[in-house]
Amino acid sequence: MKHDSPPARRRPARKRGRPEGAGVAAVTRNNIMRAAVYCFAQSGYAQTSNHDIAQAAGITSGSLYHHFDSKAAIYQEALRHCLITLTETYRSAFAEAADRSCIDQLCLGLERVIAVSRAWPGMVRFAGNSAAEIRHNRELDWLHAEDAQAFNLLFRELLQVASERGELATGVTVEDAAQLLVALVSGLSIAHDTDLGEARFAATIRSFERLLKGQLLKPRGPRK
Amino acid sequence: MKHDSPPARRRPARKRGRPEGAGVAAVTRNNIMRAAVYCFAQSGYAQTSNHDIAQAAGITSGSLYHHFDSKAAIYQEALRHCLITLTETYRSAFAEAADRSCIDQLCLGLERVIAVSRAWPGMVRFAGNSAAEIRHNRELDWLHAEDAQAFNLLFRELLQVASERGELATGVTVEDAAQLLVALVSGLSIAHDTDLGEARFAATIRSFERLLKGQLLKPRGPRK
Repeated sequence: MKHDSPPARRRPARKRGRPEGAGVAAVTRNNIMRAAVYCFAQSGYAQTSNHDIAQAAGITSGSLYHHFDSKAAIYQEALRHCLITLTETYRSAFAEAADRSCIDQLCLGLERVIAVSRAWPGMVRFAGNSAAEIRHNRELDWLHAEDAQAFNLLFRELLQVASERGELATGVTVEDAAQLLVALVSGLSIAHDTDLGEARFAATIRSFERLLKGQLLKPRGPRK
Repeated sequence: MKHDSPPARRRPARKRGRPEGAGVAAVTRNNIMRAAVYCFAQSGYAQTSNHDIAQAAGITSGSLYHHFDSKAAIYQEALRHCLITLTETYRSAFAEAADRSCIDQLCLGLERVIAVSRAWPGMVRFAGNSAAEIRHNRELDWLHAEDAQAFNLLFRELLQVASERGELATGVTVEDAAQLLVALVSGLSIAHDTDLGEARFAATIRSFERLLKGQLLKPRGPRK
């Protein structure tokens, strides 16, 4: 509890003490989301309490409830924010490399995601876990339809253009390839250990880029 | 409750009514595990009750407790069984294709896993989810160290031999490539939707095999 200083002039009651203008509220909301994303990535939805999130955000539980009604509401906003951030990161990389092959576009997207992951700890794993979390927590059931297709749509867009340019192997459909990329990128996201830092994540992503380019494993050993 | 028939001869009490010899007990235990794997894959550990498992296995909750002390004990035995089944499936395929490239060995392993997945619904997703489930459920914490490395070890063995045959690209370490394969195979496992059947899983796995062979995406579009 803070000591409120007596009001020097007539102002709305909630302006007293710590200022809670629109800008400050937005900063606090963002801090809460960053804290929540990290906690959810580390411990999972069921094992993360509102108290954990408030503590990680450096605020009181009371203040948390001022911004969000429930843990499910925090999860929803955090997930939407992360999905938008990640899909927009990919989309802008795909656009930047539009005149190159879809393998190059994917690799540029992955490089940008490495940077996002460094800037927002836990985001990648949080997003990767989301499909299972939504399935496994009744409180989150209603989220599923809204966000589950975000990555599928992203990769279908990329691969549709690639297919028109003749970059998909014969017999491979856009939908098959999109489904594969969603699964692989989810696997990479979930494997991102928030504790072990970003260097290992980056190394795994770069191995994946080599696989996409067909440069990870050789079909035959040249020596021996 | 069943009507016990009066004992005709002197036998141990639990032999009365339904026979529960070692063979029958093993069958029941196996049924429980199959039911548990399916339930855990569908709903997650926290949302699966012992009652759900008993119901899916076609037995009473009382009978379930005759075989397992707790849900965590069922999870542990089911996970160990699934990990052994899956890693041995890969290992025997790797051995069968030992004179071919590691890409071919991997693809044969993946084909065999498709068959296992058809034979035991939910196993693949259950195993894929296990790392996150163990992290996110305090009851399972103690399992982590024991089983988390099973797939890493499997792929390291394969890639170590491949590396000695010169099949790893320059600059790619066995550990990096193993870590990548674990992440990708986990992603494919988790994406396996137990409800939507095996055909889609098989299609995704075959796209992955094409990716491993460098035959999914072309670096440049030949047409246009």
